[in-house]
Amino acid sequence: MDLTERSPIMKVIIVGGVAGGATAAARLRRLDENAEIIMIERSGYVSYANCGLPYYIGGTITDRSKLTLQTPQSFRNRFDIDARVRQEVVAIDRAARTVTVRRLDDGTEYVEGYDKLILSPGARPVTPDLPGIDAGRLFTLRTVEDTYAVADFIDREQPRRATVVGAGFIGLEMAENLRERGLEVTVVQRGEHVMPVFDADMASLLHNHLREHGVELLLKADVTGFEETSDAIFTTLADGRVLESDLVMLSIGVAPESTLAREAGLELGMRGSIKVDATMRTSDPDIYAVGDAVEVTNVVTGSPALIALAGPANKQGRIAADNICGRESEFGGSQGSSVLKLFELDAASTGLTLTAARAAGIDADAVILSPANHATYYPGAETMTLKVVFERGTGRILGGQAIGRGGVDKRIDVLAVAIRARMTAADLTELDLAYAPPYSSAKDPVNMAGFMIENILDGLVDQVTWDEALELVAEDGDAILLDTRTAGERSRGGIEGALNIPVDELREHLDELPRDKRLLVFCASGLRSYVACRILSQHGFSCANVAGGYGFHTQVKRGSAAPHACVGDCGLPV
Amino acid sequence: MDLTERSPIMKVIIVGGVAGGATAAARLRRLDENAEIIMIERSGYVSYANCGLPYYIGGTITDRSKLTLQTPQSFRNRFDIDARVRQEVVAIDRAARTVTVRRLDDGTEYVEGYDKLILSPGARPVTPDLPGIDAGRLFTLRTVEDTYAVADFIDREQPRRATVVGAGFIGLEMAENLRERGLEVTVVQRGEHVMPVFDADMASLLHNHLREHGVELLLKADVTGFEETSDAIFTTLADGRVLESDLVMLSIGVAPESTLAREAGLELGMRGSIKVDATMRTSDPDIYAVGDAVEVTNVVTGSPALIALAGPANKQGRIAADNICGRESEFGGSQGSSVLKLFELDAASTGLTLTAARAAGIDADAVILSPANHATYYPGAETMTLKVVFERGTGRILGGQAIGRGGVDKRIDVLAVAIRARMTAADLTELDLAYAPPYSSAKDPVNMAGFMIENILDGLVDQVTWDEALELVAEDGDAILLDTRTAGERSRGGIEGALNIPVDELREHLDELPRDKRLLVFCASGLRSYVACRILSQHGFSCANVAGGYGFHTQVKRGSAAPHACVGDCGLPV
Repeated sequence: MDLTERSPIMKVIIVGGVAGGATAAARLRRLDENAEIIMIERSGYVSYANCGLPYYIGGTITDRSKLTLQTPQSFRNRFDIDARVRQEVVAIDRAARTVTVRRLDDGTEYVEGYDKLILSPGARPVTPDLPGIDAGRLFTLRTVEDTYAVADFIDREQPRRATVVGAGFIGLEMAENLRERGLEVTVVQRGEHVMPVFDADMASLLHNHLREHGVELLLKADVTGFEETSDAIFTTLADGRVLESDLVMLSIGVAPESTLAREAGLELGMRGSIKVDATMRTSDPDIYAVGDAVEVTNVVTGSPALIALAGPANKQGRIAADNICGRESEFGGSQGSSVLKLFELDAASTGLTLTAARAAGIDADAVILSPANHATYYPGAETMTLKVVFERGTGRILGGQAIGRGGVDKRIDVLAVAIRARMTAADLTELDLAYAPPYSSAKDPVNMAGFMIENILDGLVDQVTWDEALELVAEDGDAILLDTRTAGERSRGGIEGALNIPVDELREHLDELPRDKRLLVFCASGLRSYVACRILSQHGFSCANVAGGYGFHTQVKRGSAAPHACVGDCGLPV
Repeated sequence: MDLTERSPIMKVIIVGGVAGGATAAARLRRLDENAEIIMIERSGYVSYANCGLPYYIGGTITDRSKLTLQTPQSFRNRFDIDARVRQEVVAIDRAARTVTVRRLDDGTEYVEGYDKLILSPGARPVTPDLPGIDAGRLFTLRTVEDTYAVADFIDREQPRRATVVGAGFIGLEMAENLRERGLEVTVVQRGEHVMPVFDADMASLLHNHLREHGVELLLKADVTGFEETSDAIFTTLADGRVLESDLVMLSIGVAPESTLAREAGLELGMRGSIKVDATMRTSDPDIYAVGDAVEVTNVVTGSPALIALAGPANKQGRIAADNICGRESEFGGSQGSSVLKLFELDAASTGLTLTAARAAGIDADAVILSPANHATYYPGAETMTLKVVFERGTGRILGGQAIGRGGVDKRIDVLAVAIRARMTAADLTELDLAYAPPYSSAKDPVNMAGFMIENILDGLVDQVTWDEALELVAEDGDAILLDTRTAGERSRGGIEGALNIPVDELREHLDELPRDKRLLVFCASGLRSYVACRILSQHGFSCANVAGGYGFHTQVKRGSAAPHACVGDCGLPV
C-alpha cells in the first residue's frame, strides 16, 4: 500500500478519545499513513485509565500521571493524530458530512467536515430525577475529572461516612476504595443482591465479604431522594429510613450516551443505544459507532445486549478502523466476561447467569463446586466457589461464575473461551490445561465442572438446590436430608432433622434408610454426597445430591464467610 | 441401574494405584456398586501426590502425610476397593484371563482372575547403561520411596553439592528444591537447552534465571559415566570434564513401563508404549491401558505421541472405567499443556513449539510479545514473555509458551482451550476475557498475540527473527538495523551499527533512510517497531519487524535476566 498510489486523502473524525475511540484512531493511522484523523474528546484527557479511577481514589494508585499516560501531544507524535480535548461534538449534519464542535472552555463552535465518522461517546452514569440529585456532596465516577473531584473532596473535607448507591462494578470498587481511605461505608442496592452478573446465591458470598470488611449493606432498598446541609448529605429510602453521610457516590448503572446519534437520526437499539452491524457501522454508511454506547449481540443468546466493558470497546474500535480502511472485519459479539477485586476476594463471571439463562427461555441448570485453586498438598491452596451454567439436553456451557482468592480469573477465562467455542460439558472434561501443584490440580476445577455436568446429563445423579431441598423436606415429608459428613464435621454445625451417616459407613447402614422417601444427600461440598448418591441409587433408593453442599449453604443462607472446603475428607479420586 | 437387575458380578483388576489407576478404580465403583475391584500397586502407597514429591525434598511440603493422604484403607472405606500395595503383577495370561501377582515382601506369587484388566503402570525414569549407574549416591525420582530416599540421604549426609543430569520438569524442579535445601547445584543437559517443551529462545530465559539463582548449567554436555567413592560421586562428561558432587539426581526422561504388556503380546506403539484406541482399549478387548505408558494422539498434529503428564492420565482412567461399564467415552488426545515453577518464574506451554511444528512439516511461524500480566498503572504489574505459534496461511493456533511472574498459566490455559477448539488468530482477537486492572489489560496478551498474527497474515508487516536479522545485516549489506527506541533507552544498550530514530520522530526523518536497503526495525518489545514498519512501508520502504525486540534479544543472546519491558514508551493504543 504505497501512499503514492492513494488518493484522495480520507478525513476521519472520531467522537470520544478513550478506549474504543483511541484504539480506532491508532489503528486508522497504522492502516492509512495519509488519512487526516481528528479525535474529539469532551473531557480534558485522552486514552486515560478509566478502569483505574477508583484505585486512585483509594490510594492504591498514587501517581496522578499514571492515570493519564497519554496526551494529545503523544498521539500527535506517535500517530500524527489531531486529538482535541475539552471539545464536544454537538451536532452531526449527515447530508453535508460535517459535525459541529463546541469548545467547552469558551463556548465557541466550529464546523468540521468528515469522510467517515466514528462515534465512541461511551455511557454516562445514570442520574435519576430525584430530589437533591444535584447536591455538591453527591458524586458520580466516569472521567479523570470526576476522580479528582472525589479525591480532592476527601482530602479537603476528611469525610468519615460515605453512602454508595448502587452495587455494580463501580459501586463495589468505590465501596472498597472508600473503605481503604478509612471511611465508614454503607452500600444501598435496590435489588436483592449486589452485582447482577452473579446469581443471588453466588452474590451472597460477596455480601458476606463486604460485611466482614465493615461495609454496611442495605439490600432491596430504594432511594427516594437526597438532602444536603452545610456538613452532611442525607439519603432517604422508600421505607422512610434516612442515611446521614458526608458524601454520596451514585453508581446505579450507566446509559448509552446516544443523544448525538439520536438527534442525527441514526437508528437506535435497546435502551437508547446506537444500532450497528457486525462491521460497527450505523444506519448511516459513513458513520461507525463503538464502545459502551452501542448495542451488541450477546454471543450466548444471540440476542441484542448492552455490555459496557473496556475489552469489547477496544476490539470494536479496531474493527471500525479496519472496515473504514477497506479491510473486512466483524465483531462477533460480547459475552460480558468480567472480574471484580473486592478486598481479598476475586469475583469473575462470563456468559449467562442461571437467572439470565432461564429468563432467556433456555432450559438451563448449574453445578456448584468448591475446588481448591491448586493442589491442596502444596502450601497456600485456597478454596474457590465455582458455578457453571449449562443447557440441559445439549450440555452446552452457557456461563460461569467464580469467587475466591487466586486462580478465579483463570478459570473464568478458560470458561469464556469454551463458551466462545460453543463447547459442551463433555468438551470441558477433555480440556488439557497446564498442571503443576502450585497452579492447579490434575483435574482442574473446569474439568471437574465438566464431569459433574456430564454425570447429571447422563442420569448418574439427580441434583436439587438447597432451596428446593429445604422446601421438599418442609412440605410433604416425602423427602429427608441425609448428611454424609463425618461426626467431627457435624459437631461444627449441621442441619436439624437430617439423618447422619458418613459416606464411608454408608454401605453398612443401608438398612436404616427409608425406601419410601427421597433422600436429599449432602456433604461439605457435594463430592462425597455424589459418591453416596451413586451407592444409594444403585441399591434402589430414590435420591438427589444437594448442589453446593453444606459449605455453600452456610455461606448463602447463614452469611458465613468461613471457608467451606472439606477438610481432608474428600481428597479421594473423583 | 438397580443392582438387583445386574448379573453376574464383574471383576476388574487394575495394575497401578496412582493417577490413572486410582481414578479408574473410583469411577468404576461409582458406576458399578457390585463389581469386584482389585487395585495392585508395586510401591507402598496408592494415589499419592507424585507431582509434589520434589517439594517434599525441598522442604516446601513438610508433612509426610500430605504426600500420602490416601491409603488402601481409605479406598476400602469409601469405594469398597481392594487396594494391594507392595504387590506386582508379573504376568498376564490373556487366554485364561488371569494375572500372576508377586508379593514383594516375601516373593510369593498367586494367580488372580479378571473379567477386565486396566494397565496403569506409568513410566519409569530412564537409566542408561553407563558405568556407575548403580551408585548409591545416584538417585532417580518416581515414587514416595524414592523421595524419602533422597530426603533421608540429605538429612543424614548433609551433602553440599548435587549434580542433576537432565533438565526436564523433574530435573529443574529438583535443581530448585536442592538449591532450596542449600546445596550447590550443577545441571547437566545433553541438548542445547533445558525443557524441550520450550523453543531454544524461550528456554534461554530459564537458563538466565537458573544462573541468577546460582545453578551451574552445562548444556550440550553428554554424561559418559559415574564413579563413586566413600564420600563423593564423580560424573564424567564426554569432553573429559569430571564433576565432583555428593549426590547425583538422574532425570533424563521417562520410558513407558510396558514390559508386562509386551510380554503379554499386546500391540505396542512408539518407543515401546502400549497402543490403545480412543476408548483406552488395548489390542485385547478385555484389557485397557491408561496413563504415562500409553501412546496418545497429539491433538495438534494428529500424530502418535508420548505425553507423560498427570492430567491426561486422570482423564484416561475415567474413560477406561466408563467404557468397561458400557458407557461410551473417548479420549480426544493430548496437547501437552504443562507448567513449571522455577524459583520466581512461572513457565508454561501448550501445543507445539515452533521447532516441533516445523519438524512435523507444518508451515509454521510465531510471534513474540512482552505484555504485562495486568494493567501497568495498577501496582505489581510484571512483564511476561509470550510466544504463540501459528500456521501460515490458515492462521490456526498451534502452540503457546509463556514465561514470567504471575498470569502466565492463565494465558497458556486460554491458548490451550483455543487450540483445542482449533481457533485461528482471528478468533484470538475476539476472545472476550475477564478484565479489571488487577488481572489483565483491556486487550489481554492473548488478544494481542492474535492481533500480531493477523497483521502478519494480512501482509501489514513482515517479521524476521533476531537470528535472521543479524545474518542479513552481516551477510550482504542489503539490510540495515533501525532502532526506534528513545535516546534514553539506547544509552542503556543497543546494537552496534544500527540506525537510531525514535518512532515518534520517524516521519520527519524519512529522507535520511536508505531506499535501496531492507530496514530491519526494532524497539524494546516489537510494538513501536511495528508502528514504525507501518509508517515505513506506506512510504515505500522495504522493512521488517524484528520479533521480540531488543529486550528479547538481550535475554536470548546476552543472558540478561533483566526485565525487558518498554518503560512508559509503548503504552499508546495498539
